[in-house]
Amino acid sequence: MTLPAALRPLLETTLGPGGVIAVPAALEPYERDETPGLAAAPDLVVLPRTAAEVAAVLRLATEHRFPVVPRGAGTGMSGGSVPVRGGLVLSFERMNRILEIDEPNRMAVVEPGVITGDLQAEVASRGLFYPPDPASHQFCTLGGNIAECAGGLRAVKYGVTRDYVLGLEVVLPTGEIIETGSRTLKNVAGYDLTRLIVGSEGTLGVVTRIILRLLPQPESVRTLQALFSDIRTAARAVSRIASGRILPRALELIDSGAIRAVESFLKQDVSGGAGAMIITEVDGPATATSGEIETLAEVCREAGAVSVKLARDKDEQDRIWKFRRSISPALYTIKPRKINEDIVVPPARVPDIIAEVQEIAKRHGLLIVCFGHAGDGNIHTNIMLEESERPRAELAVQEIFAAVLRMQGSISGEHGIGTSKAAYLRLEVGAQALEAMKRIKLALDPNNILNPGKIFLSAE
Amino acid sequence: MTLPAALRPLLETTLGPGGVIAVPAALEPYERDETPGLAAAPDLVVLPRTAAEVAAVLRLATEHRFPVVPRGAGTGMSGGSVPVRGGLVLSFERMNRILEIDEPNRMAVVEPGVITGDLQAEVASRGLFYPPDPASHQFCTLGGNIAECAGGLRAVKYGVTRDYVLGLEVVLPTGEIIETGSRTLKNVAGYDLTRLIVGSEGTLGVVTRIILRLLPQPESVRTLQALFSDIRTAARAVSRIASGRILPRALELIDSGAIRAVESFLKQDVSGGAGAMIITEVDGPATATSGEIETLAEVCREAGAVSVKLARDKDEQDRIWKFRRSISPALYTIKPRKINEDIVVPPARVPDIIAEVQEIAKRHGLLIVCFGHAGDGNIHTNIMLEESERPRAELAVQEIFAAVLRMQGSISGEHGIGTSKAAYLRLEVGAQALEAMKRIKLALDPNNILNPGKIFLSAE
Repeated sequence: MTLPAALRPLLETTLGPGGVIAVPAALEPYERDETPGLAAAPDLVVLPRTAAEVAAVLRLATEHRFPVVPRGAGTGMSGGSVPVRGGLVLSFERMNRILEIDEPNRMAVVEPGVITGDLQAEVASRGLFYPPDPASHQFCTLGGNIAECAGGLRAVKYGVTRDYVLGLEVVLPTGEIIETGSRTLKNVAGYDLTRLIVGSEGTLGVVTRIILRLLPQPESVRTLQALFSDIRTAARAVSRIASGRILPRALELIDSGAIRAVESFLKQDVSGGAGAMIITEVDGPATATSGEIETLAEVCREAGAVSVKLARDKDEQDRIWKFRRSISPALYTIKPRKINEDIVVPPARVPDIIAEVQEIAKRHGLLIVCFGHAGDGNIHTNIMLEESERPRAELAVQEIFAAVLRMQGSISGEHGIGTSKAAYLRLEVGAQALEAMKRIKLALDPNNILNPGKIFLSAE
Repeated sequence: MTLPAALRPLLETTLGPGGVIAVPAALEPYERDETPGLAAAPDLVVLPRTAAEVAAVLRLATEHRFPVVPRGAGTGMSGGSVPVRGGLVLSFERMNRILEIDEPNRMAVVEPGVITGDLQAEVASRGLFYPPDPASHQFCTLGGNIAECAGGLRAVKYGVTRDYVLGLEVVLPTGEIIETGSRTLKNVAGYDLTRLIVGSEGTLGVVTRIILRLLPQPESVRTLQALFSDIRTAARAVSRIASGRILPRALELIDSGAIRAVESFLKQDVSGGAGAMIITEVDGPATATSGEIETLAEVCREAGAVSVKLARDKDEQDRIWKFRRSISPALYTIKPRKINEDIVVPPARVPDIIAEVQEIAKRHGLLIVCFGHAGDGNIHTNIMLEESERPRAELAVQEIFAAVLRMQGSISGEHGIGTSKAAYLRLEVGAQALEAMKRIKLALDPNNILNPGKIFLSAE
């Protein structure tokens, strides 16, 4: 779409100096997120500073019926922040303040544009801990984390973003500013609007302030890296750890394709040619973690690890995690294209889904790289391809999703539906639950101005 | 209302032998829950055995426009299961099976009529742990816990019911059977219908099957009871523990009125005339909990405790918790009536809200008994009264709520809004959030047949 020309001066007045980006070259960074192969140009980008400004923009959008697409740092993996129908991108670059860290109550109040890693570091300096830890924590924003209900590395013990959001200030699509939740750990006053907004991918309301729960920083953290000759053996080790009595705070599985990619990307041989890697980490009182990490090391050895290394200090821990966090950028060096999926199965089914994905890859002659948060059953499956392989890859995706749903899993653990999985949502939730979701969307956004074209297929 | 006479045989056919209760005397137990002074007679009670039967009932209700009120064990405190507009009570007495305990994945699948304590005991026998622990756990049902998003004694560390619900089978008011969530710890496929239903007090859908997350049973549990000369000193000790580095799994505060009531009810002097009691408990690896409980004991002593007792074994722990769980029944022995509130404030404000409630009690010449989950800021404030004191008591309630909201708390931590707090919901959430909630209600229950008259005032 193209916005009416008269809107631009109105928006400039509303948002003040530097509040509107209109130069085509300057709009270009707002065309895409990290979803492969997806881009669409916004008509304008606006940079609000307050909830009132967001409300003014949404009232204009209601009046003139143009799409408004909220955007954090654009690190999303399913197209959530891409303006597929044009209109305005609402970027939170100017709403990036940590407003308060309430130490006695262990809460933080932030604007949506705060980088997740910045909050983690700030609270850590005060002996506090913000557990959700998406792999992109150095870049992604808390507003984006809330829109997608981001998970990450520590969900196996600590849960996901949803579990740390106590309250929100939200601007509804029709322009009302509401507050949800409170500064309390419990709250059952009416419907849980907080958690309806979390994970709604910017389609039900625009978050303008966030109250987050924090924890005391764990006294000690111990990390281990185990190497295996093949992925199936490693997956069985994951499954044993996941059903054991020790609850690790991270339990990651990395296959040979990902290992090779990272080793080439970082230009170092870390694994000596291993076929799979597990990284796991425990935290808690120092009196407990030493014994726990030794127990997990023993489980890995008994399950067939060819080598197990316990990090001796923070530096070694950081090196292990740097390896893990390098996977996403490294994969781009293997093949020009990828289709990245974000499947999740019951944790004990990890060996089964890994075996099934391998079968599917073989059947279609595709390279599928698997890695991710295996402790909570969440595996990032990346189909690496030349453009010519795409039709086969699409078939493989359908087969992978069918296997996941047979195992009572989900097609998206933490990346969201956006545009890239909208065609498959019905397969998971069924026509009637999808209809219920659409009735909720219509109830809160009757004019369909907020992030249209996401989650639901246009034709539906 | 009175149902059309023709409905009864239809329902009897649908629900089979023993599926419909129509004898007035047999309906009487379904007139009330644990909300003081509230009762209303249903026209009929139906006892479904399957989701399909629930759906059939809801389709009849849609066709004939009569209210349907889901009911667990009737232990609610805000009127959620009372049929205030007559119609059908849908009781889950015949849907009370634990369908599966999936040990490798640490999940349980249950019907809504399962008693919470029965599930706790069953999973404990397998080395697993279901943390949510309402004080009524021996009587209340998991379906009721989900309707109200029950909290309880362990929320300070483990969160509330919401945090353990992975998926639901739900019958929508219009009769469709949907499944939400999955058997996974992460799931972002579309809107979070699971957590919209949790805490919706049986107004948005009828839960017919529940997938719950379990944890490994903690290796050790240590409990302490500390006595104080007065409630304000005890409240300060709570606040110090709550903001400290050790996260107890329970942190309860009990005032002198509650202590006296329980001592008289149990016919034993436990406290030697103390003015307040704290019960706190830690769990985790045995190497850690011994030191942690000693540290908490020291915090209590430094904060002015007159005595601190560490439970030496399971028997002593059980005695301490029996004291705590006896408060609700014991209070009925003090005065004929009570108004029980369920306020929650940021944990560090517990001393302030306790002081404020005492002021309000004094000003109105009322006896207000305070106890509860002080570690998460959730205080049950019980105004004990003769009928003649009610007008003063109503004023006191308004003043207490105003104080709670000034402290950024909530008028209901875990009991829900139901009918008893519906008049105050707008005060907390504001007119526009209330309107958004009503739009969601209308979207899912267009005929207002499911638990009408709850959460929202009729006149609104």
